[in-house]
Amino acid sequence: MTHDTAQSTKPRVVLLGLGAMGAALGRAWLAAGYPVTVWNRTAARAEPLRALGADVAGTAAEAVAAGPLVVTCLLDDASVEEALAGADLHGRDLVDLTTGTPDQADARAAWAQNRGARFLSGGVMAVPPMVGVPEAGGYVFYGGSRAVFDRHRSALAAPLGVHFAGARPGAAALYDIALLSAMNGMLAGITHAFALVRGEEMPLKEFAGLLTSWLSAMASAADTMAEQIDSGDYTRDVVSNLAMQVSGNRTLAAAARERGVDFRLLAPYSELLAERLAQGFADEDGTGALELLVERS
Amino acid sequence: MTHDTAQSTKPRVVLLGLGAMGAALGRAWLAAGYPVTVWNRTAARAEPLRALGADVAGTAAEAVAAGPLVVTCLLDDASVEEALAGADLHGRDLVDLTTGTPDQADARAAWAQNRGARFLSGGVMAVPPMVGVPEAGGYVFYGGSRAVFDRHRSALAAPLGVHFAGARPGAAALYDIALLSAMNGMLAGITHAFALVRGEEMPLKEFAGLLTSWLSAMASAADTMAEQIDSGDYTRDVVSNLAMQVSGNRTLAAAARERGVDFRLLAPYSELLAERLAQGFADEDGTGALELLVERS
Ligand SMILES: NC(=O)c1ccc[n+]([C@@H]2O[C@H](COP(=O)([O-])OP(=O)(O)OC[C@H]3O[C@@H](n4cnc5c(N)ncnc54)[C@H](OP(=O)(O)O)[C@@H]3O)[C@@H](O)[C@H]2O)c1
Ligand SMILES: NC(=O)c1ccc[n+]([C@@H]2O[C@H](COP(=O)([O-])OP(=O)(O)OC[C@H]3O[C@@H](n4cnc5c(N)ncnc54)[C@H](OP(=O)(O)O)[C@@H]3O)[C@@H](O)[C@H]2O)c1
Repeated sequence: MTHDTAQSTKPRVVLLGLGAMGAALGRAWLAAGYPVTVWNRTAARAEPLRALGADVAGTAAEAVAAGPLVVTCLLDDASVEEALAGADLHGRDLVDLTTGTPDQADARAAWAQNRGARFLSGGVMAVPPMVGVPEAGGYVFYGGSRAVFDRHRSALAAPLGVHFAGARPGAAALYDIALLSAMNGMLAGITHAFALVRGEEMPLKEFAGLLTSWLSAMASAADTMAEQIDSGDYTRDVVSNLAMQVSGNRTLAAAARERGVDFRLLAPYSELLAERLAQGFADEDGTGALELLVERS
Repeated sequence: MTHDTAQSTKPRVVLLGLGAMGAALGRAWLAAGYPVTVWNRTAARAEPLRALGADVAGTAAEAVAAGPLVVTCLLDDASVEEALAGADLHGRDLVDLTTGTPDQADARAAWAQNRGARFLSGGVMAVPPMVGVPEAGGYVFYGGSRAVFDRHRSALAAPLGVHFAGARPGAAALYDIALLSAMNGMLAGITHAFALVRGEEMPLKEFAGLLTSWLSAMASAADTMAEQIDSGDYTRDVVSNLAMQVSGNRTLAAAARERGVDFRLLAPYSELLAERLAQGFADEDGTGALELLVERS
């Protein structure tokens, strides 16, 4: 992951999609001195970018005609197809920063190639406030055309760090999806935690600080978990044995009940660990429950 | 939170429970030079501590008689009652580091007081490898007798940092439970993420590093969420609007299906956000979904 700030030639960036993420990307490219052409389905959202110096295209097709590097950052994969329906992609380098599944990314690559474009899929590991702020550590997983990645590397690295994950677009999408999934689990946990402590004496801002430190410290559990999965031995380097965790989960559920907070967000993980325990793995760490998530074919 | 390493008088610590956490605490007290008397239901688990210099009691009652500071670190609240059933608690300062619900902590305090003991409840925010390692930032939330906390502060601060949360034992337990709940959400998300990427080209250890950085960066979302909850305005400082998140969740679910990974751990959070969206809150951040967790009375 690098933030490349080389000040050589600045090619035009054509940007389709000015939602929260697209607009942040557009502002970062403008701030870095790139000429930018923008388009957004709802035209009014382009005005703040115009005020910062962007050229505004009236249609997606018109935007795509403005330069060879075309970046899409739209709601979902279907909206990419819809937005580009009338555009001539011949000879374009299409960089799609829209979150999609691995299969969607691979199919979108074939679709783009059929229309004469080269394709690079990107999964954005950042929230909008992190865009253009290298210290924040945001980056994009890229997968697909290495030629597109290399040719536009400076431009791509202006708003966020870059990480080339391989020639398969779907691989980048998968890592993106996996990290976003982990984040959603964490956000679910945070939501439950706030529901529990709201109304308590400690100001929520103070509790948020404790939450952030605690979760940051505990996130490194991923390291031990990776070793356990790699070794196939979930009784190795056990931090919290399964029997204790299942007992602890009963306490978490009881506490939620006491406070009138619905346990639904955490129930499936509790049940998964209990299932694994029932299979006779009391001495494992919680990691082993992963085996129950993978559907046998 | 402080780690107090004052080298004055070292009172005896009586420690009941030598599971992963109790044993780590015992080793830390011995390493810090405290005389320690230990007891464990399964006697064999006391031998490693004996080898490090601990006195080993044959029964819980005998251990409790060995000194005024009695620390319990057992499986759950019921095991505390069971272990102490035959012990004379009169005049003891009972510090209970067993994870329990707020109501259990309050009831255990009353129970201890009825038996002539002073009571301090503690919620351990650390995993065993963090015990005795001040840099790791682990600490204990204490709630209950301030006198017990002050009298034994040096001893209590030897293995882990200390944080006095107030005179109500249940308050300390609640913060403990809330942080553990958030952690479980995160662990559920990490488990799902590993299930998705296992078998991919990137070594799991490398992916674990990306997971840890990503989750650490995203954990600070708790800060914005606290402000949104405090203000009651979930459309304030929106990072990812609800409509986009619900769409993103459909993508996460579809990706899981593609990979043959059961989506059960993340489904309830997706459904909660979709419910909130259906109520007409497309412009909110995801935080507003918290309102759906709190049961109306
Ligand atoms: N925000 C984040 O935190 C974040 C983080 C990482 C990745 N991402 C990803 O970035 C992408 C954009 O997210 P965002 O936060 O910018 O979302 P957003 O604020 O909701 O913006 C969505 C954008 O997609 C456009 N759009 C939707 N359907 C369309 C269609 N059928 N045809 C043409 N345009 C369409 C919208 O145009 P209108 O203005 O006309 O509605 C808007 O420009 C998503 O794939 C998201 O998963 C976002
Ligand atoms: N490990 C962690 O990561 C962690 C982190 C924070 C908090 N905690 C909390 O610390 C406490 C202990 O956890 P741990 O990891 O040490 O668990 P553990 O390794 O499973 O040890 C459980 C301990 O409880 C004892 N015990 C269980 N039932 C008993 C009973 N009825 N009577 C007497 N003793 C009984 C066990 O004795 P035997 O040896 O005879 O079975 C053992 O000493 C729990 O409340 C846990 O929530 C643990």
